[in-house]
Amino acid sequence: MNVTIHGRGRHYRTVTFDRARNAVLLVEQRLLPHEFKIVAARNFRETAAAIRNMIVRGAGAIGATAAYGLAQGALAFRGNDLKKFSAHMEKVYRTLRGARPTAVDPVNALHKVICAMWKGEIVAEQQSLALAAAEDFADEDVRHCEAIGRHGVKLIRNGTKILTHCNAGWLAFVDIGTATAPMYAAQAQGKKFHVFCDETRPRSQGATLTAWELAQQKISHQVIVDNAAGHLMQRGEIDLVIVGSDRTLGRTGEIANKIGTYTKAVLANRHAIPFYVAIPLSTIDWNLKSGFDIPIEERDESEILGAWGVVQSSKSKVRGSKSRCYVRVGNPTSGARNPGFDVTPPELITGIITPAGIFKPKDLWRRRRELGFTD
Amino acid sequence: MNVTIHGRGRHYRTVTFDRARNAVLLVEQRLLPHEFKIVAARNFRETAAAIRNMIVRGAGAIGATAAYGLAQGALAFRGNDLKKFSAHMEKVYRTLRGARPTAVDPVNALHKVICAMWKGEIVAEQQSLALAAAEDFADEDVRHCEAIGRHGVKLIRNGTKILTHCNAGWLAFVDIGTATAPMYAAQAQGKKFHVFCDETRPRSQGATLTAWELAQQKISHQVIVDNAAGHLMQRGEIDLVIVGSDRTLGRTGEIANKIGTYTKAVLANRHAIPFYVAIPLSTIDWNLKSGFDIPIEERDESEILGAWGVVQSSKSKVRGSKSRCYVRVGNPTSGARNPGFDVTPPELITGIITPAGIFKPKDLWRRRRELGFTD
Repeated sequence: MNVTIHGRGRHYRTVTFDRARNAVLLVEQRLLPHEFKIVAARNFRETAAAIRNMIVRGAGAIGATAAYGLAQGALAFRGNDLKKFSAHMEKVYRTLRGARPTAVDPVNALHKVICAMWKGEIVAEQQSLALAAAEDFADEDVRHCEAIGRHGVKLIRNGTKILTHCNAGWLAFVDIGTATAPMYAAQAQGKKFHVFCDETRPRSQGATLTAWELAQQKISHQVIVDNAAGHLMQRGEIDLVIVGSDRTLGRTGEIANKIGTYTKAVLANRHAIPFYVAIPLSTIDWNLKSGFDIPIEERDESEILGAWGVVQSSKSKVRGSKSRCYVRVGNPTSGARNPGFDVTPPELITGIITPAGIFKPKDLWRRRRELGFTD
Repeated sequence: MNVTIHGRGRHYRTVTFDRARNAVLLVEQRLLPHEFKIVAARNFRETAAAIRNMIVRGAGAIGATAAYGLAQGALAFRGNDLKKFSAHMEKVYRTLRGARPTAVDPVNALHKVICAMWKGEIVAEQQSLALAAAEDFADEDVRHCEAIGRHGVKLIRNGTKILTHCNAGWLAFVDIGTATAPMYAAQAQGKKFHVFCDETRPRSQGATLTAWELAQQKISHQVIVDNAAGHLMQRGEIDLVIVGSDRTLGRTGEIANKIGTYTKAVLANRHAIPFYVAIPLSTIDWNLKSGFDIPIEERDESEILGAWGVVQSSKSKVRGSKSRCYVRVGNPTSGARNPGFDVTPPELITGIITPAGIFKPKDLWRRRRELGFTD
């Protein structure tokens, strides 16, 4: 996507590889929206740390980062001894795989790169196959997001007012994003529309990441609190909802996504507003038989009882110190509950926008071959 | 309510009058939950400023503050000249009435005190009638909240899990509160139950004020983000919702309350969870014919794009500096929409808990005499 710094726009991917320095280049997402900075992970350990410490987050983005990390580890090896190379690669693989143990995308990405490497007969060949496979993985992520945009763009007309939740945008993938892909495609077609970004407490990814992305792309948008969508729907100010998904159950059509997604689906249903979920194929889980089996992560209560931001005067938009700090908002002697995700049932979902087209959630299983499922 | 400071509990009202110092004593609500402090408004101008600057907020609390402010202004007058006294009182009235121009409770409170004063024939008599009327107003507020508690307490059983939104508690009234009244009554009966407090962005009155109140009363509770109620309802973790109301339409049964209330009502309806609204009689509007005629205040976007809190480490619960500051959370180049209230239709409301009993929202008009309505 284009990012404008000091008045000049340039195209960036969230994750790229610098062959000359054997470094993975990443947008440092923890600094956003207050500062845009590309950081270099100079060896596979730094790349794993970048995933672990959430310098990079989002399904597609951490998948590509892991893939590049494996290639980076391979390319750092000196010599021709295949046995030593194998032992080295096992260490690289374990380090990267352990960075976010519960995420499924890095695992898939690592396996793709390893399978490609096996076709090489000497170390040098395996090294270049690894890099080519990592580049393929990243390019495929971009192509899939582009395809989501092509299918989803027809939902957006001139004047459409869209609601989105959390960040399923460019920053969560290599480029373009999923929930944002139809918006970027519509903009490319010259359509004028408006986006409401739920701030998405507790981590505020809507106010920090999605709003920042849309501002960079000069797409008309406003941040709202998570409480406000119902009122806006009641007053006819929302025509369409598009969100992402962390896990989509291929057998039932349920989706698990950031906490609050279910609430927006219930509201959209009451107001007969179309509710779409944009997903890459990698989030489809063909095994689970019920959304109640999806483990819902309970996160730390400090997220609920406070907020992260940059200290400044409430009146001025002038940015003060850029150092981000945590402020305690809630009562210090109270506890909190912090479920990170919720599950939305298929009857509340108008359609699932995939790289292979838009599907009714209940049709995923019947049409699983079109979605790349192989028994 | 009881407030525990340095391990010792004491009973406080939100608003009281100190005859010896001719001062209105107020809980400084802007410091909560980080600091509990009673401040003295030493003359009617300071009392008006306390209302204007939101040292005191909430329908019943600002009503009682205005009533005491009028008595305070009367008592400060020296002499017997009724004409001069009248001119002085007009100034006092105008100052207090202008403090929160759109609020209806201070106006009603001021009129009650003035009507009582007119029965006096000399200045000294009018002065003491003013104070007696102000004390009556405050006592009536407490009695009404107690009555709400008596009617609402039967909704709470041992083990009931209650959701509440924003703050319709002790701090918003002279004592006890409205949405909290059934909880305090249930506690007095020895019932054990649990309360989830919506944090209530953007101003977080749930996390700051309601959570603080419940902690003082030792009622089991947890703060949740506004996004989480749907998930908890889905998992059977909420049995009952009780909220307050800023304006209740007597003709239609619609209620206007803090933004996000409507969303909770829609969710409760989907999950067949009883949704109750606790109100003092003063919030009933017998004139408006439709909730769409209620003006919805659009507040400053700084509330959406940031948060107020106390700077501290995210890991420790130890309180650092108590100075509250504003942090920018969202993207600095994005705008925001900030509607302060929303309207919940009667079909989503199980019952309205009033000092005169629990009413179906559609029955308010038919049974208006019981609610003190006079043509």
